[in-house]
Amino acid sequence: MKVEWYLDFVDLDYTPGRDELIVEYYFEPNGVSPEEAAGRIASESSIGTWTTLWKMPEMAKRSMAKVFYLEKSGEGYIAKIAYPLTLFEEGSIVQLLSAIAGNIFGMKALKNLRLLDFHPPYEYLRHFKGPQYGVKGIREFMGVKERPLTATVPKPKMGWSVDEYAEIAYELWSGGIDLLKDDENFTSFPFNRFEERVKKLYRIRDIVEAETEERKEYLINITGSVDVMEKRAELVANEGGQYVMIDIIVTGWSALQYMREVTEDLGLAIHAHRAMHAAFTRNPKHGITMYAIAKLARMIGVDQIHTGTAVGKMAGDYEEVKRINDFLLSKWEHIREVFPVASGGLHPGLMPELIRLFGKDLVIQAGGGVMGHPDGPRAGAKALRDAIDAALEGVDLEEKAKSSPELKKALDKWGYLKPK
Amino acid sequence: MKVEWYLDFVDLDYTPGRDELIVEYYFEPNGVSPEEAAGRIASESSIGTWTTLWKMPEMAKRSMAKVFYLEKSGEGYIAKIAYPLTLFEEGSIVQLLSAIAGNIFGMKALKNLRLLDFHPPYEYLRHFKGPQYGVKGIREFMGVKERPLTATVPKPKMGWSVDEYAEIAYELWSGGIDLLKDDENFTSFPFNRFEERVKKLYRIRDIVEAETEERKEYLINITGSVDVMEKRAELVANEGGQYVMIDIIVTGWSALQYMREVTEDLGLAIHAHRAMHAAFTRNPKHGITMYAIAKLARMIGVDQIHTGTAVGKMAGDYEEVKRINDFLLSKWEHIREVFPVASGGLHPGLMPELIRLFGKDLVIQAGGGVMGHPDGPRAGAKALRDAIDAALEGVDLEEKAKSSPELKKALDKWGYLKPK
Repeated sequence: MKVEWYLDFVDLDYTPGRDELIVEYYFEPNGVSPEEAAGRIASESSIGTWTTLWKMPEMAKRSMAKVFYLEKSGEGYIAKIAYPLTLFEEGSIVQLLSAIAGNIFGMKALKNLRLLDFHPPYEYLRHFKGPQYGVKGIREFMGVKERPLTATVPKPKMGWSVDEYAEIAYELWSGGIDLLKDDENFTSFPFNRFEERVKKLYRIRDIVEAETEERKEYLINITGSVDVMEKRAELVANEGGQYVMIDIIVTGWSALQYMREVTEDLGLAIHAHRAMHAAFTRNPKHGITMYAIAKLARMIGVDQIHTGTAVGKMAGDYEEVKRINDFLLSKWEHIREVFPVASGGLHPGLMPELIRLFGKDLVIQAGGGVMGHPDGPRAGAKALRDAIDAALEGVDLEEKAKSSPELKKALDKWGYLKPK
Repeated sequence: MKVEWYLDFVDLDYTPGRDELIVEYYFEPNGVSPEEAAGRIASESSIGTWTTLWKMPEMAKRSMAKVFYLEKSGEGYIAKIAYPLTLFEEGSIVQLLSAIAGNIFGMKALKNLRLLDFHPPYEYLRHFKGPQYGVKGIREFMGVKERPLTATVPKPKMGWSVDEYAEIAYELWSGGIDLLKDDENFTSFPFNRFEERVKKLYRIRDIVEAETEERKEYLINITGSVDVMEKRAELVANEGGQYVMIDIIVTGWSALQYMREVTEDLGLAIHAHRAMHAAFTRNPKHGITMYAIAKLARMIGVDQIHTGTAVGKMAGDYEEVKRINDFLLSKWEHIREVFPVASGGLHPGLMPELIRLFGKDLVIQAGGGVMGHPDGPRAGAKALRDAIDAALEGVDLEEKAKSSPELKKALDKWGYLKPK
């Protein structure tokens, strides 16, 4: 197809209609002009091909995407493209991605391409339900009105028998953890079958709830092929659970969208782990931003999702995490707010700074920073809760540690990052 | 966790057992030694955490991954890691990826990480079925013994009404195309509903089969949330189709694994499109190789998959595409061979070189290079078939064009890449 033809997809005087879906890309052209490169993105992600054609159906002409903004940015360019809704199937995240995040990443005419953000108009968004519970619903069923929720993954993350796992769950919940969480690769194994674990763990949960008079939940990892996930979700509901965990990127959007329906029928909230996201979110010049991924997940309707910590072991700087969390907690048409989950390298000494940075609407997940407490997981759980309480009360952790030997030992082991 | 503890995951004298799963990574350390970085990868992808722990269950000790090979490579290092099978749920691709392609991509201790390849032992592989048909099965039901199969996506890829699409399908199939293919973003829309398209197109297919006495098939795009895909697959089977197309990366592994079962029950082959793969396969230093993706897809059991052309519009060099195609066509335990699909910027003038490079066991998909023929799609289809026949007969295309006016016009428009 001739260069002139690609330029038909570029109109910098164009004002997008309120019923168009806008996508923002960063790109670096490869041997072509920025206008041609942007036109090629708009073409390939809408109706395009590379050569002159036999016929052009009326609906194809009306479905051409338009580059309406193009500016230099660093070594590349930012383009904003308007897509008519005729290009998108109603309520299908996978079809949306096939278009706006599909073949374009492989085009030779681009050195790099990054999908930065997308803005679905209400006419598109209305086909999505968003979270079943969201922040408000979760706070309600957990009976936790103000403070961040606490979660722990037993570490090591693999190898526990059901009985060993039940023992540790009892310790963690009793110490003050709200949510016990399986890790992403912990599903079902000969030494710990899901069917046995689900039965045993919810009985322990019931015991701790009676003893502590606090709601306790279990983010049990149901991740698998979709028939397996559906059966596991049913088991969870049968045992009286109210949450499932799905590792959403390796699972994929097709199954996640279906599981949103399944879990609604069963009354289960979805905790979204995001292993593998950094394979395509981490390079700042290529791939897809975590911001855009979080938006997709909110549209489909996860109730909480990992977004980073800015203070722990995983990549992700403060501005990026803050921007994602703010979006998840912002008003967005009929779509409920989603709980951001801070996870990765957290321990009690980081709580005041973490809460200062991100606020109270947060699930704080500490694995090693609870499990590794010198006096064991129950003490680790108490140290975490005490640190959070102190942060909310505006009490310095060293002060608080005077009345909390558990917190004292945690600070001695892992240190204390004084809030700025 | 202390550096020494990470080094417990490194043992360069270790010889992996025959029942371990081996993964090859490229990585660049970020402020730590290569040994520590490799140890951290092995730790985080198996049992690991970052601090000393309360208890170490027996099964966790036995499940530690081991770095057994570590060598400098370019700006980084190649590590080979042996994973005990206790780490993996039987028959779950998503769980495998949660481990070996999960959190590790986001670790601060690494600047870049790329999953190059993985080697499942038979004990792991035996839980997967692979393709239902594969190369042999497809050749059988298509009645095409020797030559490459031909496929075309009507272009523009969007905007056709069912009647317009039926008209063009008739032309393409009549001209000699074996497989009509929907494009990745073409699913179901108000102007072209899947339910109407599936009914109409298979009736046209029946007519062309009767007229040409050749088998004709339709790679109809069923991609969507998994409940939608299942219904669409049933419709295809009801209408007498034998193929579905799934855009596998945006769909995700969980739904794909389930659809492998659904399509077996319905007798349908799976054509795998791979839009979005380049978001994480393209950067040679980070993400996952297309080779590893193709291996996963073969394990699950797609019957054909796009792998690149080395001569067209998409990225992907010859060595990479050749290596993938050779793997797909190689013997691999009980797993059938998969048809590689060459697609992207192909036209008749490229056929001799394409077939010289990749051989006859290939699905050759030309969209614009058929649709854009000056005399229309039927002539374009004939030109493509004539070019392939000439290549197989060892006849030069310019010679062949003397008896094929369709091929002549195609060469005049798009040129002729003489085979080397």
